[in-house]
Amino acid sequence: MSATGRKTPTREQLHVWREFLETTEKLQSELGGRLQAESAISSADYKVLLALSEAPDRRYRSSVLADEIGWERSRLSHHLGRMERRGLISRVACADDSRGSEIVITAEGAETFRRCSVPHLRDIRELFIDALRPAQLSAVADATTALKHHLERSSVIRSA
Amino acid sequence: MSATGRKTPTREQLHVWREFLETTEKLQSELGGRLQAESAISSADYKVLLALSEAPDRRYRSSVLADEIGWERSRLSHHLGRMERRGLISRVACADDSRGSEIVITAEGAETFRRCSVPHLRDIRELFIDALRPAQLSAVADATTALKHHLERSSVIRSA
Repeated sequence: MSATGRKTPTREQLHVWREFLETTEKLQSELGGRLQAESAISSADYKVLLALSEAPDRRYRSSVLADEIGWERSRLSHHLGRMERRGLISRVACADDSRGSEIVITAEGAETFRRCSVPHLRDIRELFIDALRPAQLSAVADATTALKHHLERSSVIRSA
Repeated sequence: MSATGRKTPTREQLHVWREFLETTEKLQSELGGRLQAESAISSADYKVLLALSEAPDRRYRSSVLADEIGWERSRLSHHLGRMERRGLISRVACADDSRGSEIVITAEGAETFRRCSVPHLRDIRELFIDALRPAQLSAVADATTALKHHLERSSVIRSA
């Protein structure tokens, strides 16, 4: 860790951070509210369906899915139980691992995902893309890459 | 709504959005994990304590606090119950409103907030500020302002 890493932010830096945090939270909340109103799907349901719809063979081991979407395994397990009861996914025991299970998107889950994606992508376009000029969108992409790489390095240092 | 607002994002635009969403979620998750490990406080507790510590007279009506932090009232009410049992806040009936209550930060809550803020601000500096060059931080501030104003206009249009 660098010497500067131990200092607290300046008043101006903290203002940027708080605006950033509050705005991203409001954006996620507005997108989640619209998804629920338009398609009766929560942001959490969408995240699981998106990951499974892009998975090799449309299935993941539960442990891999947890890593993929960044959730604790217990949270994922509870959420998958609710999605299974609604017929969106199914869980099958792994043949080669008595403790694990594979999560598979059902035909109904795939259809739900396909149907809700159309308005959701329009909402992303309306609330995120259309808010930014092309140069601003490029700057967001650049800053996101910097944050992502820095976060990967920080996490590695912490857990080492 | 503009005509362009009804279109879905291009592949490149969607890639920027997904990287942005995933990175901000990882950043929030890493900051929340550190806050819990360092101070035994969740991000949700911190948010409530921060709002109350900046409130006029260090207290808010519960309905105003809910708006302030952007939560549904039922979620806030459950969370405040847990914080009250831990001695961090107290709820007092409003003299002029039989249905409402005022939320007050306790001396213990104020001390907890003061103590946990030091490492939390260092974490914000380390994971967010130090990740970005000054020009990148300015660009984030600029894009955040654009997103915030666009979101305020979109929400007003929707609810009109």
